[in-house]
Amino acid sequence: MKVELPPFRPIYPSPAALITSADEAGKPNVCTIGECFNISIRQPVIVGIAIAPPRYTNELIRRTKEFVVNLPTAKLVREVDLCGSCSGRTADKFALTGLTPLPAVKVRPPLIAECPINVECRLLRVETMGDHDLFIGEVVAEHASDDALTPDGKIDVAKLDMLLYSNNQYWSAGHYLHPHGFTR
Amino acid sequence: MKVELPPFRPIYPSPAALITSADEAGKPNVCTIGECFNISIRQPVIVGIAIAPPRYTNELIRRTKEFVVNLPTAKLVREVDLCGSCSGRTADKFALTGLTPLPAVKVRPPLIAECPINVECRLLRVETMGDHDLFIGEVVAEHASDDALTPDGKIDVAKLDMLLYSNNQYWSAGHYLHPHGFTR
Repeated sequence: MKVELPPFRPIYPSPAALITSADEAGKPNVCTIGECFNISIRQPVIVGIAIAPPRYTNELIRRTKEFVVNLPTAKLVREVDLCGSCSGRTADKFALTGLTPLPAVKVRPPLIAECPINVECRLLRVETMGDHDLFIGEVVAEHASDDALTPDGKIDVAKLDMLLYSNNQYWSAGHYLHPHGFTR
Repeated sequence: MKVELPPFRPIYPSPAALITSADEAGKPNVCTIGECFNISIRQPVIVGIAIAPPRYTNELIRRTKEFVVNLPTAKLVREVDLCGSCSGRTADKFALTGLTPLPAVKVRPPLIAECPINVECRLLRVETMGDHDLFIGEVVAEHASDDALTPDGKIDVAKLDMLLYSNNQYWSAGHYLHPHGFTR
């Protein structure tokens, strides 16, 4: 039987992502978001992130128009939660968590070394939608940690140790089921 | 060490979602998408789905301006893959899969009975972004199966048996780790 619920953040799960940004002097910040997604797959690659207006990262990306999406592992859940529990306006979250910034190739915000996937983005535009702002970014470089790759250099999903966010809970990923198209 | 990769659909994982839509006569269709996400959390609730232009669901939502996001379980992976492997222009995917349509409350496309979460949406607007079109929908009703709820009527994530999509692979969800804010 179906039960009608008060609508609230209805899509499950989303990746828990760490977004790096930087101010005009290059000082980096990290924040945790639950709304991060692919939009255009290939030509060009475009991603979206939704960030509430009060957050410092919202202000920084509006000012400097670049960001990096870093996908953490489930082992980093404590660092991820810490980065979502205080503001970069007053805290140095790299110092707080011990996460390691690495220089990006095409943008100023750093990659996070401990995250197996790092996606450099240039802001295409930002649009307010309800209680969040949607930042649309064109992907200008994508990096993976070498230990998250197959022997022939492709991403090995099993090695990403993906961290999920669902209904205010952190979850781990389970196991591989099937390839896309297996019923054809 | 970091390795630069050719950018391609860089965010992992996303929910594998079944989108129902309908033509002007009310004939329903189902399609599988990998890009489905929350944008605005509460005031109002807004979700986004990205669908490539050639797909029949893209055409149907443009025409009738309503859709339902149905979140399947990992047990439904075969039905999910079938709905992504043929077109509703020529196939009746409810007949093909045996999935059960249920009347929605506020929109014409049906809910899928076997999916524990069903999100009724009215189209706010659609924007082409690269190789996909981004459909922005306001959530007008959200339903859950009663067996996916806690005794006090809230969503029990463990009972959703979430199905993930990552790098052209279907994955199951793993286990609960921590509540949001556990480091505070």
